[in-house]
Amino acid sequence: MGLIRIISAAQAAQVFTVSDALEAVENAYRQKASGAGQAWPMVYEQFEPGAADMDIRSANLGESGLFGLKLTAWFSKNPDRGLPDIYGTVLICDNNTGQPLALLNASALTGLRTGAAAALGIKALACEGANRLLVVGAGHMCPFAIAATLAACPSFNKIAIWDPRKKQVPEARLATIGKTVNETLDAAGIERTYQLVGAEDGPSAVAQAQAIITVTPATTPVVQNEWVQPGTHISCVGADMHGKQELANALISRARLFVDDRDQSVSSGELEIPVKEGTIQPQDIVAELGEVLAGTTAGRTTDDQITVFDTSGIALQDLASAQIAFERAVERSLGSSVEL
Amino acid sequence: MGLIRIISAAQAAQVFTVSDALEAVENAYRQKASGAGQAWPMVYEQFEPGAADMDIRSANLGESGLFGLKLTAWFSKNPDRGLPDIYGTVLICDNNTGQPLALLNASALTGLRTGAAAALGIKALACEGANRLLVVGAGHMCPFAIAATLAACPSFNKIAIWDPRKKQVPEARLATIGKTVNETLDAAGIERTYQLVGAEDGPSAVAQAQAIITVTPATTPVVQNEWVQPGTHISCVGADMHGKQELANALISRARLFVDDRDQSVSSGELEIPVKEGTIQPQDIVAELGEVLAGTTAGRTTDDQITVFDTSGIALQDLASAQIAFERAVERSLGSSVEL
Repeated sequence: MGLIRIISAAQAAQVFTVSDALEAVENAYRQKASGAGQAWPMVYEQFEPGAADMDIRSANLGESGLFGLKLTAWFSKNPDRGLPDIYGTVLICDNNTGQPLALLNASALTGLRTGAAAALGIKALACEGANRLLVVGAGHMCPFAIAATLAACPSFNKIAIWDPRKKQVPEARLATIGKTVNETLDAAGIERTYQLVGAEDGPSAVAQAQAIITVTPATTPVVQNEWVQPGTHISCVGADMHGKQELANALISRARLFVDDRDQSVSSGELEIPVKEGTIQPQDIVAELGEVLAGTTAGRTTDDQITVFDTSGIALQDLASAQIAFERAVERSLGSSVEL
Repeated sequence: MGLIRIISAAQAAQVFTVSDALEAVENAYRQKASGAGQAWPMVYEQFEPGAADMDIRSANLGESGLFGLKLTAWFSKNPDRGLPDIYGTVLICDNNTGQPLALLNASALTGLRTGAAAALGIKALACEGANRLLVVGAGHMCPFAIAATLAACPSFNKIAIWDPRKKQVPEARLATIGKTVNETLDAAGIERTYQLVGAEDGPSAVAQAQAIITVTPATTPVVQNEWVQPGTHISCVGADMHGKQELANALISRARLFVDDRDQSVSSGELEIPVKEGTIQPQDIVAELGEVLAGTTAGRTTDDQITVFDTSGIALQDLASAQIAFERAVERSLGSSVEL
């Protein structure tokens, strides 16, 4: 069949930077908007409800010359056995011949491409000159969301983190997040000066923010409508499956709404519950972000609008990211090139 | 993430025999019948209608401890470029942890597992002691169908091949098919004495056969109702996508019907057109073959029944086959074990 390149988590992390992720996600969103990229139906199955599942997301990235899939398996009991709770694997193929090109461990790609999606929402929709970012949630995704925003949006320099499950973010956790942010920026050769603080008072932290990224596993809203000031942009990352919701319904109905994928956002993203409860209709979604990036739909139209961008993650992002990682790995002779 | 084993076409061919294929497919069918195995929705997309497409079939093979997928890409113009027209790739994962175990080139597995399906249909449904097999179609699949039948059904020793597109099967082609049949049996350590002839007259060849395997890409029926004698069994392999049909509607409505997958047989298999044209109803399907193998549904109930088994191919077959190939490859230290 020819050679296929196998790229491990460590090798992908070595070659794929936050700048690459921003380029990949913007490319993926633009191709989706133009029709050159198509996301195919997701296959989703539970092995044990609430404890183990898997999904297969596949897509064609027409202009980039490839198609493929990402298989994500989540087994929540794995850490007790010393194994990662998530195995993400991407397979990319040439869409002119069908030949498999590379199999990649997706873990290093996923954090960066998800952070990049949130950051592109801010870049496209936040008020010009905004400098105050609040990240709601202090978990694994938090530093990638911050690093991508610092990389994509030069005006931001005051970063706060609020963990709605705790009174405050522990100092040690704050230091770890800061370290990962700096390493992520360093790897891309980006130098930024910024302030990073933990917020104790959620309502006041939300009120002070000009852009917010929500990255929690919440199933009841953690950001209330009355806390949010006019002109704020919110990128919602956490809600990526049935039953999850981070923003109050009233906030969703007050906002100008953008998504990465109309269907997915309503079926299993942040807009699932507001639509089910009748707070909004699917047609209230103004556009997919790719249409804003391509200039075919206006993003923010006034300075006091609240804008919301919901990203639940599409395979096009993974394929575009995998392509860059694959090309870089070939250039640097990284990964195992084996006969398939 | 740990190690994944990459198994090439040549390596899979080295370790996977027709006996393995019969074991794997029977196992897959039984697990589907018992509910331990589940086939998940297929993703199917065309790149160029009638010239290039791909599908992703995924499944859980519960009792065998794995789940996974097969990605099949068909690009009909590839041979002009010196490339294979089909790239088949199987990824198997541990269904207790989600960890990817192996990536295999499916080409060596697919021919054998498809032939094994046809042969299991004959083993389960043909009249006892039957010895005359006709294969309709002289292409790539023909020798695997013959070898699997010889391996699974000891009573068969007179094999004829009829190519409905030609006046007769060329001698050279007949010799090549015979050579592949013998090599396939040899690799499994099976010794069989049999007669292999080309048939010129389709209607008479069909009338003489006690079991028939159809393996053509036909879109209009190549086997007519009035040719088929009472008591004949037919395994239909060719019709595996929209618009294909090998048996006349009247023959289908006369037969006791079995399938590998009820939904797929009606949506894109041999029964698609008879159901669409109202010749039969989906509920006329007696059972999936796994139910017959498991003994929960009777197969043939009289010696003069015509029985039909339609196999359009399910991912469970591929996963069960891949598992055996993977285990054999590990035993013999074949394949590349690389960090993912």
